[in-house]
Amino acid sequence: MSDAELPVDGARVLADLTTLRGFGAYETGVHKPTFSEPHLRSLHWLADELPEAGLSATIDGIGNVLGQSTKPGLKLLAGSHLESQNYAGWLDGPLGVIYALEAARVINNDPSIAGSVEVASWCDEEGHFGSLLGSRSYVGDVSEAELDAARDRSTGRPMREALRDAGLEGRARITAEPGRHIGYLEAHIEQGDTLESGGLAIGVVTSIVGIWQYRIGFAGEQNHAGTTRMAVRKDAGLALAKFFVAIDARFPAACGPRTVWTTGRISLEPGAPSIIPGHAEMLFQIRDDDPAVIERLESLLRSLAEDATAHGPCRVTVERVRTGAPARMDPMFHHAIETASATLANGRSLHMPSGAGHDAQVLARIMPAGMLFVPSIGGVSHHWTEDTSDADIVTGARVFAEACRRLLAG
Amino acid sequence: MSDAELPVDGARVLADLTTLRGFGAYETGVHKPTFSEPHLRSLHWLADELPEAGLSATIDGIGNVLGQSTKPGLKLLAGSHLESQNYAGWLDGPLGVIYALEAARVINNDPSIAGSVEVASWCDEEGHFGSLLGSRSYVGDVSEAELDAARDRSTGRPMREALRDAGLEGRARITAEPGRHIGYLEAHIEQGDTLESGGLAIGVVTSIVGIWQYRIGFAGEQNHAGTTRMAVRKDAGLALAKFFVAIDARFPAACGPRTVWTTGRISLEPGAPSIIPGHAEMLFQIRDDDPAVIERLESLLRSLAEDATAHGPCRVTVERVRTGAPARMDPMFHHAIETASATLANGRSLHMPSGAGHDAQVLARIMPAGMLFVPSIGGVSHHWTEDTSDADIVTGARVFAEACRRLLAG
Repeated sequence: MSDAELPVDGARVLADLTTLRGFGAYETGVHKPTFSEPHLRSLHWLADELPEAGLSATIDGIGNVLGQSTKPGLKLLAGSHLESQNYAGWLDGPLGVIYALEAARVINNDPSIAGSVEVASWCDEEGHFGSLLGSRSYVGDVSEAELDAARDRSTGRPMREALRDAGLEGRARITAEPGRHIGYLEAHIEQGDTLESGGLAIGVVTSIVGIWQYRIGFAGEQNHAGTTRMAVRKDAGLALAKFFVAIDARFPAACGPRTVWTTGRISLEPGAPSIIPGHAEMLFQIRDDDPAVIERLESLLRSLAEDATAHGPCRVTVERVRTGAPARMDPMFHHAIETASATLANGRSLHMPSGAGHDAQVLARIMPAGMLFVPSIGGVSHHWTEDTSDADIVTGARVFAEACRRLLAG
Repeated sequence: MSDAELPVDGARVLADLTTLRGFGAYETGVHKPTFSEPHLRSLHWLADELPEAGLSATIDGIGNVLGQSTKPGLKLLAGSHLESQNYAGWLDGPLGVIYALEAARVINNDPSIAGSVEVASWCDEEGHFGSLLGSRSYVGDVSEAELDAARDRSTGRPMREALRDAGLEGRARITAEPGRHIGYLEAHIEQGDTLESGGLAIGVVTSIVGIWQYRIGFAGEQNHAGTTRMAVRKDAGLALAKFFVAIDARFPAACGPRTVWTTGRISLEPGAPSIIPGHAEMLFQIRDDDPAVIERLESLLRSLAEDATAHGPCRVTVERVRTGAPARMDPMFHHAIETASATLANGRSLHMPSGAGHDAQVLARIMPAGMLFVPSIGGVSHHWTEDTSDADIVTGARVFAEACRRLLAG
């Protein structure tokens, strides 16, 4: 392997990201839901760019864009996604796609470098229609029935209708060809402030946390808010609030160093100002990369529910509705990213888990996978103010391309 | 005044209530929303019955049924409502209307008794389209603009459309004629278990509690549930739960003997499982018949909010969105009901406030008003299992008619 620095063109990377930012621009971010006009424009723009990187482009039957190489040697798959959350940031997704495109440009067209980078844009990582649909389709985990049932969760529009309007109806969905790739590499903004606050440039992702989700129910007794004395009430909402506070008090002593837990949704039934709620529910989520920690926390959750039920007056039930499997990133990939960072980012890298889900966790089921993070200003995520400095974007692109070269060199 | 017992016909009272129960029957209760077919049938049934009680019947432009007398002497207005909550009980409303009808029958047709009872069925006491619309219209407190805007809160159907379909479009709305009535009397099931558990037959309502309602807001910081460390979160949902628990801990020492408070609705924004809520809101209600108690509790609520804001990390704001005015029932009416109970219910009566709202609180704004309660089995309210024993229903009817006679006798 040559030690010469790859001719990564930082200005070109920034220009490409700026082009994508122009499709569906919203304030300083973008509004680019899956299969919206700006999203489709982004997919076609990418397909048009791929040949320059020595790749033939296909947009498949689920909206994945795949660039394939005929160059001899090993092949590394790299990419991310192009749609955004509603009214969200410009880099969440596009950064990883453009890094992959730039790495493909500088590696695939250089006959002195063995092997090639193939570029992927996975459709709907942001979950407008489902959960990681594009990458899951690629690994063979999405049935036709799932697509039949999928609807845009903001608008209710059926996925089949969106595919038809996008001109993708009837196209084949491309699935992974076993043995074609040595692995998958993805870059992403950190979505947290660890790198920024530590003055670091590169996060070497060790694992993507699993998400365990629970529906916690509180059964009380619905009654009239004016005529039911306080002493005889069985208020499901109050039981929920007490349980919420108990979790907050008890979890810190039982969690791991990076565990997070969140109550994102609460409902009281019937939800009227003059009726004591007879039923309440909270949607509760735990994330960690260590199943043993989760097991401990789930036991604690269940024992808190038993205590609350025994203490009364409401019955508390805990139902697990989603079981996460943490995805371990491959040590070869850690090593490639870290080595590239040592020379191109003055070693300002840190090993860290990803608290958010990414397509890499899906690809990791069928091939070695790795991820690198770049800093995100203020750790902002899923909001249009999300941003990363130009210098960090360019450093990330250099490290990414160099990591690709090192992985292809074996 | 003759001391002879009024010829109240218990069997007729029960038969009339059973007839009304047959319109929109649901399990052992009724489903009779305002302007539904069974509700309209009930209004027309009542209008057809009124002449027999010496009253001319009108259904006015808001669906109030009013029976007017030409008999010389004082006039007492009496009634309640005929629609029900969704899938609710058979007596909540109809009981008071049939008591009024029966009192009118035995008083208006007896030339030896001076004066008459006029019967009213107030439309939409249950609030499908608004708040106490029928009685508020009668006292001149409902504008045409309010009716233009009113919609059925279950179905979204505009009130104007419902009035047109009911054949009431363009009819005048009857308003109170100053000086026509010596006052208003209403009977209702208790909607609580005080009478039943005390072995009592009649509640002498002293006041109808006021309802104060608050919107309590929690401003935190929306963020990613996977990438935001616990230590830096500003979770508006958790702030809400802690505030809810603080109210539960602090209110009992500051409240009055019959104060009740309720959180009927909670919302977290954006309400997604993987997003830390940046904003949360609770709809909080306090009921009491003593404004001084409410003042004390509202001060406590505001000081809890200040404490929570000072303690952080979320800002808590308290906004009063409804100011209740407790309605005092007239002492002459207490006395008439109590005296009637002494002879006809063996004195098994109790003075008590009403924790629920009733049309009587609206009528009390323009004339002396009174209410009597009959026991409700198990205190059930707003549910189809609501019931009262036949014996208690008949006793109530006798006491009601006798109280009417005493009030008319001055």
